[in-house]
Amino acid sequence: MTGDSPEIASDSRDLTCYRCGANAAFPDRKRCDCGEPLWFDTDAAAEAFAWPDAGTGVSRYADLLPVETGGDSRTDGGVSAAAGSTPLVRASGLDADAGCRLWLKDESENPTGSFKDRGSAVGVAWAARAGREWVGTVSHGNMAMSVAANAAGVGGSGSPRALVLVPDDISEERLAAIAQYDPELVRVAGDYGRLYRETLDADAPVEFVNSDTPLRVAGQKTTALEICEAFAAETRTRTKRAPDAIVLPVSSGGHASATWKALRELRTAGLFAAADLPRLYFVQAAACDPIAAAYRDGNDSVMPADDAGDTVAYSIANADPPSGTRALAAARATDGAVLSVPDDEILDAKATLASEAGFCVEPASATTLAGIRRLADSGELDADDDVVAVLTGTGFRELDAGSATTETVALGDLSERLRALTA
Amino acid sequence: MTGDSPEIASDSRDLTCYRCGANAAFPDRKRCDCGEPLWFDTDAAAEAFAWPDAGTGVSRYADLLPVETGGDSRTDGGVSAAAGSTPLVRASGLDADAGCRLWLKDESENPTGSFKDRGSAVGVAWAARAGREWVGTVSHGNMAMSVAANAAGVGGSGSPRALVLVPDDISEERLAAIAQYDPELVRVAGDYGRLYRETLDADAPVEFVNSDTPLRVAGQKTTALEICEAFAAETRTRTKRAPDAIVLPVSSGGHASATWKALRELRTAGLFAAADLPRLYFVQAAACDPIAAAYRDGNDSVMPADDAGDTVAYSIANADPPSGTRALAAARATDGAVLSVPDDEILDAKATLASEAGFCVEPASATTLAGIRRLADSGELDADDDVVAVLTGTGFRELDAGSATTETVALGDLSERLRALTA
Ligand SMILES: [Zn+2]
Ligand SMILES: [Zn+2]
Repeated sequence: MTGDSPEIASDSRDLTCYRCGANAAFPDRKRCDCGEPLWFDTDAAAEAFAWPDAGTGVSRYADLLPVETGGDSRTDGGVSAAAGSTPLVRASGLDADAGCRLWLKDESENPTGSFKDRGSAVGVAWAARAGREWVGTVSHGNMAMSVAANAAGVGGSGSPRALVLVPDDISEERLAAIAQYDPELVRVAGDYGRLYRETLDADAPVEFVNSDTPLRVAGQKTTALEICEAFAAETRTRTKRAPDAIVLPVSSGGHASATWKALRELRTAGLFAAADLPRLYFVQAAACDPIAAAYRDGNDSVMPADDAGDTVAYSIANADPPSGTRALAAARATDGAVLSVPDDEILDAKATLASEAGFCVEPASATTLAGIRRLADSGELDADDDVVAVLTGTGFRELDAGSATTETVALGDLSERLRALTA
Repeated sequence: MTGDSPEIASDSRDLTCYRCGANAAFPDRKRCDCGEPLWFDTDAAAEAFAWPDAGTGVSRYADLLPVETGGDSRTDGGVSAAAGSTPLVRASGLDADAGCRLWLKDESENPTGSFKDRGSAVGVAWAARAGREWVGTVSHGNMAMSVAANAAGVGGSGSPRALVLVPDDISEERLAAIAQYDPELVRVAGDYGRLYRETLDADAPVEFVNSDTPLRVAGQKTTALEICEAFAAETRTRTKRAPDAIVLPVSSGGHASATWKALRELRTAGLFAAADLPRLYFVQAAACDPIAAAYRDGNDSVMPADDAGDTVAYSIANADPPSGTRALAAARATDGAVLSVPDDEILDAKATLASEAGFCVEPASATTLAGIRRLADSGELDADDDVVAVLTGTGFRELDAGSATTETVALGDLSERLRALTA
């Protein structure tokens, strides 16, 4: 809780469970006795919340966060101060393709190229202010780079070091991408899902900010806060106060949960009515879709996928999502859905986002457009709906040599060729 | 010129020469009879300019631009609407290393990962509003991707297609990175510097927005406008109205020229006094440094480097910079300098920006920190100076498999290892 509480509110029972309503104290607890993940209870702060007059990045929404981000001044803190404030743009050129009024939230324009910087900024800021020597994560992708970079960016004595636990079979390319930020890197041989859970209870002075931990979810709320604020600013003269739908890839369920939490807080703040609440649609890759399977089957909780296969959207291939059940609840509570899309549709959507909108994203991000196409086809979305696709991460780190076929023209022949080409 | 003029002010003599003061009409002319490049004369608009109340991205500064960017609404236009609004952050953790109060302007947080999107957004917007069917560029790197992406992002009928002229020996990786945005790609066999100049006079219905053309320079002004606005907002309670220095890599001289133009306009607008004008320092790689050589030798104009070698900072290795002489004038007029740094210092600065500040940049961007270190060593910068390093482009597209040495720990032994590691 923020407000009058000290910056580090570690004594109060400041976490709540979305499902059973139980409270618990941070940082001792991350999950509820009922088994579900906890998040920070910022409802009291939300009651007095208004869109800020100033401030950029994640710290713009400090009133709804458990800790102030940044260093000595509002913009200190290197990468952490640069997280967030990503653009929300209309992509009307894709409306016909998408079957709705399409908006793109480009999270690749974060300092390490993905939405993970928002949660890392909050996690590292908390660890720094709490005097923790270490901030850790279990990841071999975007989150690993993000935690390492954000820890590197906090200057001054007493700043936490990053500890990144990676799977033993990580590729050398990925290892180097993480290592450039100089974290302590440890390869762990063993079950990765068990590692994720065990680190949260580890008897070590490391604050782990894994993908659905309360600090990370708090930071990830700012994606949706920015979407709603930018949409409201853009459409001030229109009757809609919020987008009709927000569509994002789902993996652990942390970002999905955070999006739901943000919408709940904006409703508490009176910034839009319950009837304005955007529907939340979460998309998985068909090869690994435990949350979509639970949605399809009408189950109340998500079971681990025991038949998960490989997918081009590797960064969201989580067969045992720790916040999967919470994401499921978010989709149902907002009249949204959870769906999955096959790899060929993901790759087609990725190519379209580049060639028709100018955005180079990783395959996981392209599940949004692939999902929107399906939702429009089934009548779940219609042409008048304002729909925001969250492009969660950059495609720059996986550019392959392609098969572009191009002509070669001698410089002396260029004028003639240009006239012919443009005739 | 903006103001009361129509959106496409192609009749008026709206270009001026920084050196001889001559006027010329856009789009017919790009260079002055005196041989120097022309830029848009926005002095009249600047007299009435104030920091805007609203708006994001390049279009925030529409009053100082020759065309409005974006599509039907302020945020339409895909990538073009997402260009700009990059963060300016303090990086106090690097102050001791840099020898000054260091700020970082992270231009990698543009949609295609470099500052080029600012100029491309303006160039593509102008071409679209002028009814041009084609917008072109001569590039095999950041600018090629940027023009292709920005053209892709402008939806609707009548939007221009991108024509990208690349050298015949371009790598397949780079070709694929550009091709994903689906421009018309033509390899040209012949001298690349000649190609650059000849396209500007080409008898073809293509608006070329090469690196120092008036439209591109207009868009690139927004880097410095954002720096000065963010600095002013951050330091409202302090006596300084602007940074003491801005340091950026220099290649064609287009971005350097644009930075100078922005500062001149802010002074015209009365937003700071002449005495507050930041000094401009431009940095080249030592292997290819024609502008720095002219500065060292006290020459008035830049001669092509006939002994240019390879450098890790390949994206700024321009042996015959078309706006080199203008960049030289900018450095001298602001009491700055042009210097060059060797590859080992560039690579060391690149590693430091990642490990100590959390930013992964391309080598060209790291010339800034390498240059700042030299300027501080020589007493040109001191510890009280607020110095902005412009990180022009992302390092994500050139991640190599490194030689990170890491231990492997069995999951069952992890708790013990963590205790030992963090003890
Ligand atoms: Zn519970
Ligand atoms: Zn002239």
